[in-house]
Amino acid sequence: MRLRNVKNARERLIDNHYFIEEPINNKGLWHKVFGNDNPIHIEIGCGKGQFMATLSKLNPDINYIAIEKFDSVLLRAEEKIKDEDIPNLRLCIIDAGSICDYFELGEIDRIYLNFSDPWPKKHHAKRRLTSPLFLESYRKILNKDGEIHFKTDNRGLFEYSLEMFNECNYSIKNISLDLHKDLEKYPFNITTEFEDKWSKLGPIYRLEAKPR
Amino acid sequence: MRLRNVKNARERLIDNHYFIEEPINNKGLWHKVFGNDNPIHIEIGCGKGQFMATLSKLNPDINYIAIEKFDSVLLRAEEKIKDEDIPNLRLCIIDAGSICDYFELGEIDRIYLNFSDPWPKKHHAKRRLTSPLFLESYRKILNKDGEIHFKTDNRGLFEYSLEMFNECNYSIKNISLDLHKDLEKYPFNITTEFEDKWSKLGPIYRLEAKPR
Repeated sequence: MRLRNVKNARERLIDNHYFIEEPINNKGLWHKVFGNDNPIHIEIGCGKGQFMATLSKLNPDINYIAIEKFDSVLLRAEEKIKDEDIPNLRLCIIDAGSICDYFELGEIDRIYLNFSDPWPKKHHAKRRLTSPLFLESYRKILNKDGEIHFKTDNRGLFEYSLEMFNECNYSIKNISLDLHKDLEKYPFNITTEFEDKWSKLGPIYRLEAKPR
Repeated sequence: MRLRNVKNARERLIDNHYFIEEPINNKGLWHKVFGNDNPIHIEIGCGKGQFMATLSKLNPDINYIAIEKFDSVLLRAEEKIKDEDIPNLRLCIIDAGSICDYFELGEIDRIYLNFSDPWPKKHHAKRRLTSPLFLESYRKILNKDGEIHFKTDNRGLFEYSLEMFNECNYSIKNISLDLHKDLEKYPFNITTEFEDKWSKLGPIYRLEAKPR
């Protein structure tokens, strides 16, 4: 997501304990950041951060890194949690296109992609976070049991993503073509702000994918 | 689909020019049945036959075999076309479970699966026409460019089928999660009787799959 530009967003982020100013320096060393060997789950495109904030409080034994491209957006996430103490959560500005510069081979246990920009025009397909070049990056940073958990309300993006995961040799499981009608099967579903707003208007699609 | 049992259905079928009484005898010889070398497309579970009747009239250069398990159902299909002359269409009673007994390796160019029984209970999953044993059979009878075109209104069956096509090493393309909203993209869509009745009540899902 993209929000209106916030003045001095980056400076305001630097001044808090969740924000990692130079994440590139932690490549291969993220366990040291958290001070433990717990699994690391990242969300690429964390938006306003509700999903990561909720998950990290529910699962203190998992380390979470919430990633955004835009500092103005990440500032919203930071504002949501700044008065809390969540030791297993960090926030970073990273462009997904260079994700391999920030994480070592096999360093990540799970990637969440929630309501990513659908880039509906065909000539923008490469920008979709489930396009083949991204899927190849994710394959590198995920460890051997690592998974991608993907959800979207955008039918076109989900159709495209199913085809790409299949083409790029991922196994696909736990597909739901109407997640909010399947919550008995997915009781652990944590919603994003976007999902809370839009899930009543149409189906939410989700899947889990794992590199073969 | 299953219809009420019709008395003497098989006897009534034998008495018409579309019906192949002993299809097992044509294994590897189907081109002789049609008297040409045109591609052969089959529908497994043709129901009342509207789909195959329409397609075969539209594409005289493709040979079509409409397959049903139940003679009472196939009789309904036969009654629909008995007064027409469609030289490139045949009807057969075949159980999909033994499809390889009826077609030679690579003899088929396309398989249609339309609104197959969803067998929703987990312990019936093996009966679904997109379960792994069936997908392995289809792989055998399809030629190297052969494809499966699958559509259903049943969300659970489609979710399952996506996972199975992926697991069984098929490439998947042209997925639509709401076919009747995508008819500009799929102007060639031929409806079945079931589809005409139910497509207004919810999405029709479709995909094309090809063995790798």
